[in-house]
Amino acid sequence: MPGPDADLETNLPALDPAVAGRLKRDANGLITAVAQQWDTGEVLMVGWMDDEALRRTLTTGRVTYFSRSRQTYWVKGETSGHRQWVRSVALDCDGDAVLVRVEQEGPACHTGSRTCFDADQLPAVISSGDSAAAAEAGAQP
Amino acid sequence: MPGPDADLETNLPALDPAVAGRLKRDANGLITAVAQQWDTGEVLMVGWMDDEALRRTLTTGRVTYFSRSRQTYWVKGETSGHRQWVRSVALDCDGDAVLVRVEQEGPACHTGSRTCFDADQLPAVISSGDSAAAAEAGAQP
Repeated sequence: MPGPDADLETNLPALDPAVAGRLKRDANGLITAVAQQWDTGEVLMVGWMDDEALRRTLTTGRVTYFSRSRQTYWVKGETSGHRQWVRSVALDCDGDAVLVRVEQEGPACHTGSRTCFDADQLPAVISSGDSAAAAEAGAQP
Repeated sequence: MPGPDADLETNLPALDPAVAGRLKRDANGLITAVAQQWDTGEVLMVGWMDDEALRRTLTTGRVTYFSRSRQTYWVKGETSGHRQWVRSVALDCDGDAVLVRVEQEGPACHTGSRTCFDADQLPAVISSGDSAAAAEAGAQP
């Protein structure tokens, strides 16, 4: 059974056990991190964190991700200057995702877009929840 | 090398190849799906989709996830009535996540909370991006 990668780095200070105990990591020891601009509500990007990336995010004021492709820690904006300043971090109900509200400096996406979701809208059938729900509930005045 | 699970169900109509070709699936054939209330910007929950779940989401007007724990498709609200009506779907820059803007009926979380991130705020050091950036740039009036 694969364990979390972060445990291999034994010299690092540990993530608060009260937090670590609530995480539900995937087979690679990672949880999902959703970054959201704190005031506008824009969903900026999705990244990954192991225990150590979450520890750094909680203690440094800056968002640190774990890069799955490069297998390294990655302080957002360290190279680009497009830093993410932590405003709040919330764990979800089953412990496998965090919502990190941030103050984003400049574009969040490496393409230069404000968010990583700006460029590729997929064609989708749209239903109106309100009207559909009303129709299912019967014709009400 | 594991392939996407959806390919096993050969009788299903296929996801538009123009979309499928842009997905970067994980080892289990999944991408991350972030559901956001379209008007308030609330991040409601994080789920998972394979090609077939994304196809259903794009074509039915309702959000379908793939449950990693139960290994089945899951139409949000089918049991609870807390349905998600699709308003838009956007793929991110590297093809491994979608942002699904929805009209959420009732609470999104199975716990009864409005979002899955309402209950568990983690203690975090907060820095002000504005003031920190200004300090790094030097003392400017």
